[in-house]
Amino acid sequence: MYTIGIDVGGTNLKAGLVDGAGTLTAAEKMPLKWVSPEKFAEDLTGLALALVEKNGIERAQVGAIGMGFPGQVDAKRGSVVRTVNIPIRDLPIAGLIQEKWDVPVYLGNDADCAALGEYQNFAAQGMESLVLVTLGTGIGTGLILNGKIIRGVNGCGGEGGHMVIVKDGVPCTCGRRGCWERYASASGLIRMTREMMAEHRDSVMWTIASGDLEQVGGRTAFEAAKRGDEAGKQVVELYIGYLAEGLTNLINLLQPDVVCIGGGVSNEDDAYLLRPLRERVARLRFDQMSDCHTLIAKARLGNDAGMIGAALLSEA
Amino acid sequence: MYTIGIDVGGTNLKAGLVDGAGTLTAAEKMPLKWVSPEKFAEDLTGLALALVEKNGIERAQVGAIGMGFPGQVDAKRGSVVRTVNIPIRDLPIAGLIQEKWDVPVYLGNDADCAALGEYQNFAAQGMESLVLVTLGTGIGTGLILNGKIIRGVNGCGGEGGHMVIVKDGVPCTCGRRGCWERYASASGLIRMTREMMAEHRDSVMWTIASGDLEQVGGRTAFEAAKRGDEAGKQVVELYIGYLAEGLTNLINLLQPDVVCIGGGVSNEDDAYLLRPLRERVARLRFDQMSDCHTLIAKARLGNDAGMIGAALLSEA
Repeated sequence: MYTIGIDVGGTNLKAGLVDGAGTLTAAEKMPLKWVSPEKFAEDLTGLALALVEKNGIERAQVGAIGMGFPGQVDAKRGSVVRTVNIPIRDLPIAGLIQEKWDVPVYLGNDADCAALGEYQNFAAQGMESLVLVTLGTGIGTGLILNGKIIRGVNGCGGEGGHMVIVKDGVPCTCGRRGCWERYASASGLIRMTREMMAEHRDSVMWTIASGDLEQVGGRTAFEAAKRGDEAGKQVVELYIGYLAEGLTNLINLLQPDVVCIGGGVSNEDDAYLLRPLRERVARLRFDQMSDCHTLIAKARLGNDAGMIGAALLSEA
Repeated sequence: MYTIGIDVGGTNLKAGLVDGAGTLTAAEKMPLKWVSPEKFAEDLTGLALALVEKNGIERAQVGAIGMGFPGQVDAKRGSVVRTVNIPIRDLPIAGLIQEKWDVPVYLGNDADCAALGEYQNFAAQGMESLVLVTLGTGIGTGLILNGKIIRGVNGCGGEGGHMVIVKDGVPCTCGRRGCWERYASASGLIRMTREMMAEHRDSVMWTIASGDLEQVGGRTAFEAAKRGDEAGKQVVELYIGYLAEGLTNLINLLQPDVVCIGGGVSNEDDAYLLRPLRERVARLRFDQMSDCHTLIAKARLGNDAGMIGAALLSEA
């Protein structure tokens, strides 16, 4: 039996065929063009059917469709309440799809789906709780606790990136100041890199960025640090400090079995990111006396996590 | 059918008789005197039996015993791993009690039990998630999400008070700097009150505290604010600001149905604490667009929450 997991993004719709073991066996993608609710449901169903047909699967072999949306869903009613970047409002998408393909349809928030996808690997090892922290333009968080998604009172899931760690700090898009994502996201890293470059005109970071602050990326400081550049090392240490501060907050509060770090920044070499991060958190965390600690691991599924997790919604 | 809930504290053991509706119908208390594991088990069983006998209940009418400990429990093994203030280490307490009274015994962390006790009222209203924040010497947190206790990887439950909200702020007993409880606990409030008094020699807070900084309590600034004292009002506003900052962090991350505020400070008049706190959080929280928000409420059970929650462990 298969499940189809659909990851609805702001620019693309991605559908994956997931087998009974939770493995992604095939995927299809199409650009999202918003015309109307009906057309949207048609596109989603069409994409799912194309996936099935191209892979020589019978409709009857698909037990359910799961879908992750970038916004607020009402899973019980099978409805998308509101999304970011797509003009969806109170869309009864499950029903619209079922008019075309009568199969159970499950809905989730996209960050929650990604966490569910990553969770699968750890659940097989007997773990019951996972926090996925995605380091991108902002910081996304998805929580699986006691084996269940924490959907939140409004169905949006959690926004751990908007946890203030520096009261009265850097202004955030959310209206507060000092949110974790202002410091520990890729954007935060880039800002700190530029600030350090402005103070260190001789840093190799200038060479790496071709002398142009606009060329600075999330890897610039790490690359410089690897070349032995002191200013680069300082940025990396500063960044890991902020990342560790927020992670330790999450760990002290939730004590999950595992925290997974995903997003572009997480691809950095372990020697420069994961290992120093673990060491820093080990010094900061509350339960110093305990012999049982939260594991800090890298996310493994990359961009497929959303599709795989959406497919797993039927079991969550 | 009844359940007995025992709240093991650093100085007292309290046992409550809880009926099928979750109501505390009677309670017994005795001082904790640690001699040996065997004596401890004997004391606990003796207290439970005394409770039953004094209230004319048959042993057979008691379906289970639940116990909350100030520390780390291994609920699955029925064992207390480690406690604060009592020299317990790897104590198989469930088995020891069952040697004397053969009834199911459930274990939990004390803060988690308190949260479970408060949760009962809200669960009856259809709510599935609650965070209990207890404002005392420190800040304790207990989490019930999707109707289940978040026990954490080490069975200690969460330590939301040790979430840094002011990076490099006031040093905390946990080793970090700027933990929420350094600012928003009763101790934090008292520190801020004293600091403000030192700057405002004409404040009525000096009168309330009989001219002695040692006499300053968690109510001093609130009392002064009620009398129209500007310095007192400033302390209250500052305090509520810190309280709101951490609460908003919890809400943004978990989006629970309800956050309950307990502990001594929570007894302040609503006009001076709960209402301004709600207003502040409403301005800070992430989901401004949503029509569905976390309720901020006062805890209702006071010191009974631990006993009632321990009794409810059998259902959680």
